[in-house]
Amino acid sequence: MAKQQLITLTTDFGLTDEFVGVVKGVLLCHAPAATLIDISHSIPPQDVRTGAWMVAASYPYFPDGTIHLVVIDPGVGSSRNILAMQANKHFFVGPDNGVFTLLIQNCLVQQAVLVENKKYFLAGISSTFHGRDIMAPVAGRIAQGLELHEFGRQINPEQCCQLNLPAAVHYQNHILGSLIHIDHFGNMRTSITAQDIAALPSKKNLSIHCCGTTIHSLSDSYSISPEGQLLALIDSRNHLEIAARNGNAAQLTGALIGDEVVITCHP
Amino acid sequence: MAKQQLITLTTDFGLTDEFVGVVKGVLLCHAPAATLIDISHSIPPQDVRTGAWMVAASYPYFPDGTIHLVVIDPGVGSSRNILAMQANKHFFVGPDNGVFTLLIQNCLVQQAVLVENKKYFLAGISSTFHGRDIMAPVAGRIAQGLELHEFGRQINPEQCCQLNLPAAVHYQNHILGSLIHIDHFGNMRTSITAQDIAALPSKKNLSIHCCGTTIHSLSDSYSISPEGQLLALIDSRNHLEIAARNGNAAQLTGALIGDEVVITCHP
Amino acid sequence: MAKQQLITLTTDFGLTDEFVGVVKGVLLCHAPAATLIDISHSIPPQDVRTGAWMVAASYPYFPDGTIHLVVIDPGVGSSRNILAMQANKHFFVGPDNGVFTLLIQNCLVQQAVLVENKKYFLAGISSTFHGRDIMAPVAGRIAQGLELHEFGRQINPEQCCQLNLPAAVHYQNHILGSLIHIDHFGNMRTSITAQDIAALPSKKNLSIHCCGTTIHSLSDSYSISPEGQLLALIDSRNHLEIAARNGNAAQLTGALIGDEVVITCHP
Repeated sequence: MAKQQLITLTTDFGLTDEFVGVVKGVLLCHAPAATLIDISHSIPPQDVRTGAWMVAASYPYFPDGTIHLVVIDPGVGSSRNILAMQANKHFFVGPDNGVFTLLIQNCLVQQAVLVENKKYFLAGISSTFHGRDIMAPVAGRIAQGLELHEFGRQINPEQCCQLNLPAAVHYQNHILGSLIHIDHFGNMRTSITAQDIAALPSKKNLSIHCCGTTIHSLSDSYSISPEGQLLALIDSRNHLEIAARNGNAAQLTGALIGDEVVITCHP
Repeated sequence: MAKQQLITLTTDFGLTDEFVGVVKGVLLCHAPAATLIDISHSIPPQDVRTGAWMVAASYPYFPDGTIHLVVIDPGVGSSRNILAMQANKHFFVGPDNGVFTLLIQNCLVQQAVLVENKKYFLAGISSTFHGRDIMAPVAGRIAQGLELHEFGRQINPEQCCQLNLPAAVHYQNHILGSLIHIDHFGNMRTSITAQDIAALPSKKNLSIHCCGTTIHSLSDSYSISPEGQLLALIDSRNHLEIAARNGNAAQLTGALIGDEVVITCHP
Repeated sequence: MAKQQLITLTTDFGLTDEFVGVVKGVLLCHAPAATLIDISHSIPPQDVRTGAWMVAASYPYFPDGTIHLVVIDPGVGSSRNILAMQANKHFFVGPDNGVFTLLIQNCLVQQAVLVENKKYFLAGISSTFHGRDIMAPVAGRIAQGLELHEFGRQINPEQCCQLNLPAAVHYQNHILGSLIHIDHFGNMRTSITAQDIAALPSKKNLSIHCCGTTIHSLSDSYSISPEGQLLALIDSRNHLEIAARNGNAAQLTGALIGDEVVITCHP
């Protein structure tokens, strides 16, 4: 029995139109036995940055050999390249627009090729839907065992498009970061990681300043705070998060992506 | 060939973040051949009550042996327990917060254990995402055939957390209930069941009072009423429902969850 | 090894309730090894027309033999018929309300039967959820190899309900059409097809008039225009589309479904 083929999908297609279903139809034409798993189709339209974070946060929870199809493609129909890559024992297919930045910057890419070989595209490709016409047939064929070099020339991952993602800046007794994501619950992820905080001279007497308020400690879990009160903790992606127990922190504070966050230790 | 393993997911995770996808990745790491079916990920955040109704309404339509993973978990990171249960030939995994109330109150639980055996958790569990770190690995291992007692001590289902769900109150010629759910179409489910109505002294001359209006009969289907007019019928969960043919009853009436509903027979 | 059974689902059920999950449970009771693929569950409630277009646009991307379950059913509980059809080597199950109009009008239907044989329905069918109680068991049994004639009498496809879908009207130097769909990105699909445009006396000096503005050419892709500026192109369904590069054309113009669109050639 052939090993299970697993393909994930991360797009900005939304769920109202037939776009996701049609991409899955094309995948299953090429890999009829594949299991298809949605990561999200609600990336804000053309938001490559959110896509880059989501790819990096989700792929490690899948088995080695999983194929991750990522279609956030503001440059569809232009001369932007399409990539097929192997990184950290997983496969990735998507446009070369920075959506794989974190894989590249963390030196995880083992092989990257430009998808150029038209014999693997759908006949009569459109200029508006390369997820269906190019990327799905390529991902489906990787699931069937085709080797990456069949799709086109190898390129140096360093030459691929990379985003300038916001990172935390370290000072003597504080770290300056920003809000980078607001999730479904209104929890606010910051650019400050657990590793950043570990580098502070002391972990005692921490205070977190954000959206005009100050939180006077780092909690271990949501459940320690009173209902609806702001708290700070390390989230499931290992980032500093501002949340409200059983409440919506983003609504409570009116915070927006990009707002400044400072964590200070008072030794 | 091994029998098909089927796992359903019911959560309040929403579909914008990677949360659902990541839980599925963990499930497939443990049970690579499992079929994963979404019940809903749009339970209002922390709304255990809606989750309890949805679990009870959906599981009977799945084959015996299906595993139902239910993650509505306002107490994540606290000392609340996690349950793995067998009930009515199905398996259930979720927090001990009342989400399994209807299974317990209907005496369907054959076995319940506390999930305590850390060797089945992900390494380095977070304090904010036990759906990923604890419940998914447990559900995946049940799919692989692990017996419930492997996860921890058996407990009496009566000792599990149970919600006080609104029920209909019977008087001589009328029943007092409330609106308990508004669905995607604006149809309004009440706490009054077909069994409640069967207990009235007469089924003739029924009137239903709700949201300031009176409906003068119980319809057999939506299609009997004029377009957009309010009607009452028995819905697909066997509850009394207020609806509007090809209209949105909740918008038409401004009704809210908790509003009073009275059904009266005039013998 | 049995061939893969593939079933797609297109409904107006939304994703907040358990409706879709329950239909899938019933499908898997009958066809445990089937792969289930969502096309969309966000068709506007009772919008048979949008469903008709979506079915026609999505099914060709699936392998021959795929079963397409389509539940947009404003007449549920009435005397409207339910159809099981074979068309263009695919199978279709849904209400006889026009949702299969394009298959019928394009003469693709090879066999159509009325679903009448109650032995294939769920026991105790409701009057509000025939997707679960009738259509899912039928689709599941087609996946298991049951022949269409087992479900009921054959009918002439011409006798099935057909919608009067808006089509483009040709004049000497221009074509009159209308907006028929606004997608997740705000791109606006028109009733004018690439074939309509090919029939114009000249393809040079085209102008497109819509929503009070004029677009002076047909673009090859989104990427040719400046950010946010309106453009016209042939979309992935082969229809004329009004879009805005990395913008939301529908929001920019305030356009609504049904608005007039005219394409003119100036020879």
